[in-house]
Amino acid sequence: MSNETLKKEALEYHLNPKPGKIAIEITKPTETQKDLSLAYTPGVAEPVKEIERDPENAYKYTAKGNLVGVITDGTAVLGLGNTGALASKPVMEGKGVLFKRFADIDVFDIEVNSDSVEDFCKTVENIAPTFGGINLEDIKAPECFEIERILEEKLDIPVFHDDQHGTAIIIAAGLINALELKGKELKDARIVCLGAGAAGIASMKVLTSLGADKNKLYMLDRGGVIHSGRDDLNKYKQEWALETEDRTLLDACTGADVFIGLSGPNLLSVEALKAMADHPIVFALSNPDPEIDPEVAREARPDIIMATGRSDYPNQINNVLGFPYIFRGALDVRATNINTEMKMAAVHALASIAKEPVPDSVLKAYNKDSMEFGPEYIIPTPLDPRLPDILPAAISQAAIDSGVAKIK
Amino acid sequence: MSNETLKKEALEYHLNPKPGKIAIEITKPTETQKDLSLAYTPGVAEPVKEIERDPENAYKYTAKGNLVGVITDGTAVLGLGNTGALASKPVMEGKGVLFKRFADIDVFDIEVNSDSVEDFCKTVENIAPTFGGINLEDIKAPECFEIERILEEKLDIPVFHDDQHGTAIIIAAGLINALELKGKELKDARIVCLGAGAAGIASMKVLTSLGADKNKLYMLDRGGVIHSGRDDLNKYKQEWALETEDRTLLDACTGADVFIGLSGPNLLSVEALKAMADHPIVFALSNPDPEIDPEVAREARPDIIMATGRSDYPNQINNVLGFPYIFRGALDVRATNINTEMKMAAVHALASIAKEPVPDSVLKAYNKDSMEFGPEYIIPTPLDPRLPDILPAAISQAAIDSGVAKIK
Repeated sequence: MSNETLKKEALEYHLNPKPGKIAIEITKPTETQKDLSLAYTPGVAEPVKEIERDPENAYKYTAKGNLVGVITDGTAVLGLGNTGALASKPVMEGKGVLFKRFADIDVFDIEVNSDSVEDFCKTVENIAPTFGGINLEDIKAPECFEIERILEEKLDIPVFHDDQHGTAIIIAAGLINALELKGKELKDARIVCLGAGAAGIASMKVLTSLGADKNKLYMLDRGGVIHSGRDDLNKYKQEWALETEDRTLLDACTGADVFIGLSGPNLLSVEALKAMADHPIVFALSNPDPEIDPEVAREARPDIIMATGRSDYPNQINNVLGFPYIFRGALDVRATNINTEMKMAAVHALASIAKEPVPDSVLKAYNKDSMEFGPEYIIPTPLDPRLPDILPAAISQAAIDSGVAKIK
Repeated sequence: MSNETLKKEALEYHLNPKPGKIAIEITKPTETQKDLSLAYTPGVAEPVKEIERDPENAYKYTAKGNLVGVITDGTAVLGLGNTGALASKPVMEGKGVLFKRFADIDVFDIEVNSDSVEDFCKTVENIAPTFGGINLEDIKAPECFEIERILEEKLDIPVFHDDQHGTAIIIAAGLINALELKGKELKDARIVCLGAGAAGIASMKVLTSLGADKNKLYMLDRGGVIHSGRDDLNKYKQEWALETEDRTLLDACTGADVFIGLSGPNLLSVEALKAMADHPIVFALSNPDPEIDPEVAREARPDIIMATGRSDYPNQINNVLGFPYIFRGALDVRATNINTEMKMAAVHALASIAKEPVPDSVLKAYNKDSMEFGPEYIIPTPLDPRLPDILPAAISQAAIDSGVAKIK
């Protein structure tokens, strides 16, 4: 699809037959006067009194328990940067559409015009009674770290910044499968992460939780390798500073097993790719233009396993594989937060699905004759019907086992 | 329906088959990978860029233009008082249901845990980009007046406190018809309003706009008649203080043409009713138990016209006759606010519908053989199909004529 065609079709899709992508649906009968007297006054007073008596009853008598707020301040929208709250609305509505489509979760998208971290947090905290969970979206780093920390502390419902943790979980699932295929161990792998924003830092955290050696994790930002000699690092980057003489991306890539790109188009040179260890694993996730063109990369390194953010290449690292099911699993057992155990459960469940035979419906949806666990298929595809069957259950179980589930 | 039966049915209605009364509906196709690439990345970047270029495009490419925030702080919920934000959720969802059912308007109900007028206003202001209009709900007086003033000033979308203006509009429509039936003129009428909260003060304002004589409006609160000798009045009540020797409800009612009760059960005595002028008009709107029992009232004063808030007596003063259509009319022409002209248009349109022959579908819905303009039918019924045909158009026209419509 050419850029012009995509542009035209996307605008048409959003505009007609009516603006936007969502509406409200009434789930109870409202035909008769009797119906209305139950939906509103006088009948509605009864659930109000029940909730006043016990706040937990909000989960019985209102939509709260299946309702997620997708909330942004519009400061880091897609790859477009700080568009402001209003302009981010199509993205937030779209996120809501994915929640509904893949996990039957209802979403109110909330675009917040705030002037500080404190102001944003106070707003979200104030409106939190509305929701059963909060998905923070498209908030720039480093503010997103502080915002998530404050809200997790203040609120008793799950708060999840998908750009951090969702991305990290999918990357980790793909990566452990890729390493397995190449006969490498995560604990031994030299890993280079180009991009030290929300997704980069969260990914390194998850990989560390899975057993990666922090001393072999090379993070790079615009200033090059994040090392202990730099004095320009915020506290979140500081945590990942290495004792190393390596300074450039080429330095870091030399002998590296894994490259994870969360940066921008064409930032990984063929030279750096060629300097990587045998059987390199390259996740070039800049979208739509990856850090290195997949065809160029394969020609330079036929022994590569490659993933991108694009649906038109194999191994798409797509957040939709995670967040709908993670929230489904959390909401189903009324988890009070989404902890590391639940994230690990998501990684392992996702990775394991890729190793099982693919259902025919998936082959049909993607118009393929076969998809088999291997270098071209390390992670499930978004339309795989096993995802809603397997992931939420695994995440719910992890919530129960780790003691954060209110329902067992 | 007995209280116990109502309670049981209301809780059952809210609980099953799934909690609450609303869900999200996706309005665009999302079956294929192609669909998803338009709904979310990469396609969604296009409407984002269009809105960044011109904020008005949010009305073309998102649900904003048909989306109303029903927002409360939970301080004055139904007749239950300060239930807190969370416990008010069934009411706010119910309000959303009525918006959808009667005017196809989508509502996000937002329950706000705020600690001051300023905090509440800042929260609503911050999340306002989300919405095409804001319906404030169940916020106690006098805070509601200040909140509405601040938000109207800050925001460029309609802000409407239904407990004030919606109630006032329906009362006014019923009252001008009742006066006409009794051959009385609004400008000459002595009007007693028991209850000086949000609805009482707003109703007196609307009646004044329609030509009522402010010197003949007797407002009463718990301290009796609001008169210029009192030193316990907030500034909103002060505005309605009369130069009068009348102190009690009986004083005020003596010779009064109209009684409007927005207070509590059984507060209007038969004695006071008997002291009213010939052909008294009594709107006893305390719900579910009116200020005077309709049967008692009719026996004491056979020349009465009576209205209540109940659906099981004639002349129900029901806000659902107003707010869905007022917002429909405002959103349809993208009015920047809901001004006095639009409120007056709503009053007159509503009053005029009651004078036209009732469609058969209405007779059937209410199981009646006839409904004719007269003492037992001064205001249309909620299921009247003429309301969506007539009211929004009248309100849109008033918005255009008064210069607050962005679309003409």
